[in-house]
Amino acid sequence: MTSEQDRSTAGSEPVVISIDAMGGDQGPSAVIAGIAQSAQKNPDIRFILHGDVAELKRLASKRGVARHLEGRCTFRQADDVVTMADKPSQVMRHGRSTSMWSALDSVRDGEATVAVSCGNTGALMALSMVRLRKLPGVNRPAIAVLWPSRNPHGFNIMLDVGADIRADAEDLLQYALMGASYARNGLALDRPRVGLLNVGTEEHKGRAELKAAHDLMAAGAGGANYEFVGFVEGGDIPGDRADVIVTDGFTGNIALKTGEGTASLIGALLREAFAYSFLSRIASLLALTSLKRLQKRIDPRRVNGGVFLGLNGTVVKSHGAADATGISAAVKLAYRLAESGFSDRLAARVASAAELAHDAPKAADPATGKDGTHS
Amino acid sequence: MTSEQDRSTAGSEPVVISIDAMGGDQGPSAVIAGIAQSAQKNPDIRFILHGDVAELKRLASKRGVARHLEGRCTFRQADDVVTMADKPSQVMRHGRSTSMWSALDSVRDGEATVAVSCGNTGALMALSMVRLRKLPGVNRPAIAVLWPSRNPHGFNIMLDVGADIRADAEDLLQYALMGASYARNGLALDRPRVGLLNVGTEEHKGRAELKAAHDLMAAGAGGANYEFVGFVEGGDIPGDRADVIVTDGFTGNIALKTGEGTASLIGALLREAFAYSFLSRIASLLALTSLKRLQKRIDPRRVNGGVFLGLNGTVVKSHGAADATGISAAVKLAYRLAESGFSDRLAARVASAAELAHDAPKAADPATGKDGTHS
Repeated sequence: MTSEQDRSTAGSEPVVISIDAMGGDQGPSAVIAGIAQSAQKNPDIRFILHGDVAELKRLASKRGVARHLEGRCTFRQADDVVTMADKPSQVMRHGRSTSMWSALDSVRDGEATVAVSCGNTGALMALSMVRLRKLPGVNRPAIAVLWPSRNPHGFNIMLDVGADIRADAEDLLQYALMGASYARNGLALDRPRVGLLNVGTEEHKGRAELKAAHDLMAAGAGGANYEFVGFVEGGDIPGDRADVIVTDGFTGNIALKTGEGTASLIGALLREAFAYSFLSRIASLLALTSLKRLQKRIDPRRVNGGVFLGLNGTVVKSHGAADATGISAAVKLAYRLAESGFSDRLAARVASAAELAHDAPKAADPATGKDGTHS
Repeated sequence: MTSEQDRSTAGSEPVVISIDAMGGDQGPSAVIAGIAQSAQKNPDIRFILHGDVAELKRLASKRGVARHLEGRCTFRQADDVVTMADKPSQVMRHGRSTSMWSALDSVRDGEATVAVSCGNTGALMALSMVRLRKLPGVNRPAIAVLWPSRNPHGFNIMLDVGADIRADAEDLLQYALMGASYARNGLALDRPRVGLLNVGTEEHKGRAELKAAHDLMAAGAGGANYEFVGFVEGGDIPGDRADVIVTDGFTGNIALKTGEGTASLIGALLREAFAYSFLSRIASLLALTSLKRLQKRIDPRRVNGGVFLGLNGTVVKSHGAADATGISAAVKLAYRLAESGFSDRLAARVASAAELAHDAPKAADPATGKDGTHS
């Protein structure tokens, strides 16, 4: 989905991704299988793998994966693993020897451009703040997800889905800038449409901080190269009115989990409906191709990866339960962002956010994105 | 779904429902067709119809509906109609001659037990507050909806979905009491499980007012005859961990619309998948029975009706776009609540809320609901 202009900025020099190989529900074997899938498809990719080196080397030399990974992995020993039950505060204090810490330090030290982890989200965000630090000008980092939608490119971006439960008007403006930058670099949209989540689309509705954010986002749109479509509603998250949906982490987390829960309930009811009688079982066999086509479209494994925005460096959070396909999707996303120079573009964009917010909107030039300045 | 004990409390004397016959997207003919469906199924129901009496009488005397409605309708002339575009504040000041105002006044004056309208939600809530007034002890009324779920009874109750964008800890406790009362009377659950919506299930997570509400709801559970299951997440709204999900109107409205939007996107993708090729079209014909079974289960027309809670009298808000089946579902809900004496039970429950909140939890007796005291 990345445009040619984007690709040309990176050329074909290898892109290095730092991988926290431990801490996922399915263990390091799923991680190795996933990165092997990515390596097979993409000759430009290299990995730094963090974890139990003996175990990782053993897995990487197995038949089937060895030929894809040969000469493309560096290994870093980390004795400990962050578990799903670990409290973020504990990990911040005592997590120095974990694979998560080590994976982030490869980005911090400039060895890798993007880090990928399927570990504990709270701990990963807390460690990312400590090891990578917030970008100058960013008060609250955010987690952005891709959401299946009616848009031609198939996905919308929503942020924040849970990095912080609070966000004031200035934070929401920064989410708009960061989300738009992600849409330009991750979805190759030249001038993304940004909407602010509210309980109605009328300008007089909603909480006071939303009205203030509305005005800031409208004023910032011209200079920051996005189109502000105003307030959007819950129904627009999977819709086609906006490409980027901005909200606070409390609301975004609830919307994300409500959407996932609804999709999962419908899936269960669909299976139940088809299992009802002998005839409906036959029907489901015949309908299998159609249902598989649908499943592929909304398969959460294929849109795997929440992206942490607003840090010095990019972190992709894969689902804890991700299998090889899921890991490979997260690595693909990490590669696309690394290759487009996303981290630097985002940093440049956020650095000028304060001025942008107070600038008068400039005349928008839809061609601006075409000359390679997808910042 | 109502238990025998509930029915016996009302006996078989007729239940009168006040109907705002105007203001829906499909006009009064859908309303008349819908109430005729209800009248046909239920001999104990009577209607007061508000609107253009000449038109309503003409529609009610048509072949097909006349024999069901004969002798069971009273008509009240109202010259004006609240439109979807009308601002709530305007309607409050100048809406005296509308069918919505008139329909609420029938409940206010004790002629009818429950009012049903498919008009403008904001105007209906504003007028309901003015004409029916809040129950003593209620600070913020709420709108509750039924949400398809994995629970055996097929639905969960969520409130508030948009009556007010704010709610403090005391308001959330009242939502818990009102929602539990609705679950006892509307879903015939003796001791509903109530959950408080948050971004995680751990007790240390979330906003300060949620922690305060958590403690109030835990303390109030024993005396108010519900089981408090603690914090629940977005995924639990269609799940089976709780029967009643409590949240503020901002979050609830976004969750509701996100769920609806997700279901609608999946429906569209499903149709697309089946329309893809000649073979998949044949498959869809064979799968039709199964798909219809699913559709019936999650058909929004069959769970039509947001209930306004916390007023002196009950108001059922039907979808603006409801057709005859949708109207009939809203009337059925209104009947069930009227017949169980819901308004009075809820009022009694809320009146003692303040004391309950400060009482020590009493030993819960699961049999309490069985003796007919479903308050």
